[in-house]
Amino acid sequence: MRKIIIGVMGPGDQAKERETENAFQLGRLIASEGWTLLSGGCNTGVMDAVSKGAKGAGGLVVGIIPRCDRGIISSGVDVPIITDMGSARNNINVLSSDLIIACGMGAGTASEIALALKADKPAILLTDHEESRRFFKALAPERVFLAEDPTKAIALAKEILLPGRPRQANDQ
Amino acid sequence: MRKIIIGVMGPGDQAKERETENAFQLGRLIASEGWTLLSGGCNTGVMDAVSKGAKGAGGLVVGIIPRCDRGIISSGVDVPIITDMGSARNNINVLSSDLIIACGMGAGTASEIALALKADKPAILLTDHEESRRFFKALAPERVFLAEDPTKAIALAKEILLPGRPRQANDQ
Amino acid sequence: MRKIIIGVMGPGDQAKERETENAFQLGRLIASEGWTLLSGGCNTGVMDAVSKGAKGAGGLVVGIIPRCDRGIISSGVDVPIITDMGSARNNINVLSSDLIIACGMGAGTASEIALALKADKPAILLTDHEESRRFFKALAPERVFLAEDPTKAIALAKEILLPGRPRQANDQ
Amino acid sequence: MRKIIIGVMGPGDQAKERETENAFQLGRLIASEGWTLLSGGCNTGVMDAVSKGAKGAGGLVVGIIPRCDRGIISSGVDVPIITDMGSARNNINVLSSDLIIACGMGAGTASEIALALKADKPAILLTDHEESRRFFKALAPERVFLAEDPTKAIALAKEILLPGRPRQANDQ
Repeated sequence: MRKIIIGVMGPGDQAKERETENAFQLGRLIASEGWTLLSGGCNTGVMDAVSKGAKGAGGLVVGIIPRCDRGIISSGVDVPIITDMGSARNNINVLSSDLIIACGMGAGTASEIALALKADKPAILLTDHEESRRFFKALAPERVFLAEDPTKAIALAKEILLPGRPRQANDQ
Repeated sequence: MRKIIIGVMGPGDQAKERETENAFQLGRLIASEGWTLLSGGCNTGVMDAVSKGAKGAGGLVVGIIPRCDRGIISSGVDVPIITDMGSARNNINVLSSDLIIACGMGAGTASEIALALKADKPAILLTDHEESRRFFKALAPERVFLAEDPTKAIALAKEILLPGRPRQANDQ
Repeated sequence: MRKIIIGVMGPGDQAKERETENAFQLGRLIASEGWTLLSGGCNTGVMDAVSKGAKGAGGLVVGIIPRCDRGIISSGVDVPIITDMGSARNNINVLSSDLIIACGMGAGTASEIALALKADKPAILLTDHEESRRFFKALAPERVFLAEDPTKAIALAKEILLPGRPRQANDQ
Repeated sequence: MRKIIIGVMGPGDQAKERETENAFQLGRLIASEGWTLLSGGCNTGVMDAVSKGAKGAGGLVVGIIPRCDRGIISSGVDVPIITDMGSARNNINVLSSDLIIACGMGAGTASEIALALKADKPAILLTDHEESRRFFKALAPERVFLAEDPTKAIALAKEILLPGRPRQANDQ
C-alpha cells in the first residue's frame, strides 16, 4: 500500500524562529506516524527545518527543488526532485500531497494553499496570521482547518485522512 | 518598444454576472490603452469575457491555455499558448504580465495574486470579497491596490506602470 | 479565424552562420505568409535571427522565454511569454505551434522535434545533420519532412497545413 | 549521503516484450546496487516493468506522473510525484537523475535523452534501434554510451558514476 504523503509549506529565508521550531516538530511527528514528508526542499526556513525534523526521526523526506543548483537542497532531503521551474513547482508540491500543512505565511505559502484548494486537497493552517486564517476559511470552509500547534495539526491530519478509525481522546 | 502586457485573472465557471461584465469592460479599456491583454484564455467566465472585450476593441489577446484541448480556447484569443500543465501555468500568467488585475475571487485567482506578489509584480484587486482584500493588503501593502470598478482599475494601472507622466484629473 | 502559428527551433549560442542566415530568411517568409512566428525567444542564434527576420517583415513574433531575466529576450519578439522553467518550456513551444521547423540541430532542438512527434505535430527538418535526418525520419516517417532551404521549407509547410488548396508549381 | 538516482526511460503502451523484460531486469539490478529508481511512473510498458523489478528487489521507486489521475500510477511506485504537466515532466525526469538509461526507443524516450544531453547528464542506450544509436552518439560522443543488455548497462553506470573505485573484472 502506498504511503501517505504530507506536504509542509512555509516561508524560506523570511521564516521566524517560532515557525522553524514548529516545522522541526511537525517533521518529527510526521515521520513518527510513518508518513512520507514532502516540502519545497531548500536549505532555508520551514523547508529545511521540517526536512531535518523528519529525517532525524527516521522518516522518508522528498524535496521538490525549484532550481538546478544542488547547493540549495536541504541536508534533510532523501529524494530531491529537481524541477528547475521556480514557483511553478508549487503546484507539484500540492498535487503530490494527500494533505498540506502551512507552517507560517507568506506569498509563496499562500499560493500553495490556494493551489491545494483549487485541487480539492485539505489544508491545515498553523499560523497566527489572522487575515490569512479568515481568508482561506472563507474561501473553502470545508477543506481549511486551523491548528494551534504541531501536535494538534497532526491530530487533525489523522482525522481528515483516516476518518473511519476509532476516535482517540488525545486527538483534540 | 515592447508593448505593456496586462494580465487579468478571475473565476471561470463560477464567475458571477457582475464579474464577467467587469471583465468585458476591462478588456475594452486595456485594448483602448494600446496594451496587450493576457489571461488564462479559456471560454468561460472572466477569461472569456475579458478576451472578447479586448478583441472587440481591436486589442491583441494572448491566452495561456491549461490543457491541449483546443475546444476550450476563448474565441476572443488571438495567440493561444498551449501549456498542458494545468494550474502550474498560473505562474506563467503572472511572470508574463507587467501587472495583474484580479476580477473576482476564487482559489485559482488567489493563487495567481500570491504568485504575482512572490514575483514582485503589482496586483490590483477588483473584488468585493472583503477577506481577500484584507489578506492580500496585509501580505504586501505596497504592491496590492484596491479598485472599485474597471475604470478606476485602469487609472491605477496607468499610475503604477507610467509613474513619470503628468497626472490627469480623471485618473482618480 | 485564428492565425497559423509556426514554431522555429534551432541552436542558440552554438548556431553556425549558415543556420542563422536560414533562420532570418525563414522569419521573413513566415511573416510574408501572414503566419505568426513562435520561437524560444532568446537573443542568440536561431531564435534571435528568426525573430528579427519576421519582425522586419511586419510579422507577429511570440517568444517562449526560459528564464525570468528580461535581458535575454530577442529584440525581435513582440509577445514574450516568461515561463522560468528552462527546457521544460520546450514542450510549450511545440504544443503551441501548428507545425515546427528545425533550423540546424543540437540537443535542445532534438528534444523539441521529439516532443513535437510525441504530440502528433508535423516537423520539417532544415539541416544537413545526416544522422538526425535518418533518425527522425525512421521515428515518424509520415510526420517528418526534409527541406533543403528556407523557401522549400515554407512550400512544404503550406502543403502540410493547407492540403486542400490548388497545387502551385513552385511549391516543389 | 544522498542516494544515487537512476532514471530509466522507455516506451509505454508501445513497448515490445524484449524491452519490458530488459526493464524489469534493470529495475532489479538498480535496487541491488542500493540506488533509487526514477521513471515516468505509469502502469504501462517500460515504466511499469522497471518499477516492479526494483520494488520486488526491495528498492526505493520514484515515479514522475504526467497527469492527476492516480489510476495510471504503476503499482511498483513508492513515491508518486504528481506533475499534471504531460510531457513537460520529461525534463524533471532527467534533471532529477544522476544518469539515465533508455530502454527501447520512441518519441517520448528520444525527448528524454535529448533533454538529458542538454543538461549535461550521461545517457546509456539499451536499444537495437540503430538510427537512434548513431544519432545520439553523433550528438554527444562523450556522454552517450551503448549497452547490449541490462547487466552491461549497470556495469557502465558504475564506471560512469563511480570512476575512482578499483576496476572489477566483471564490469565489462
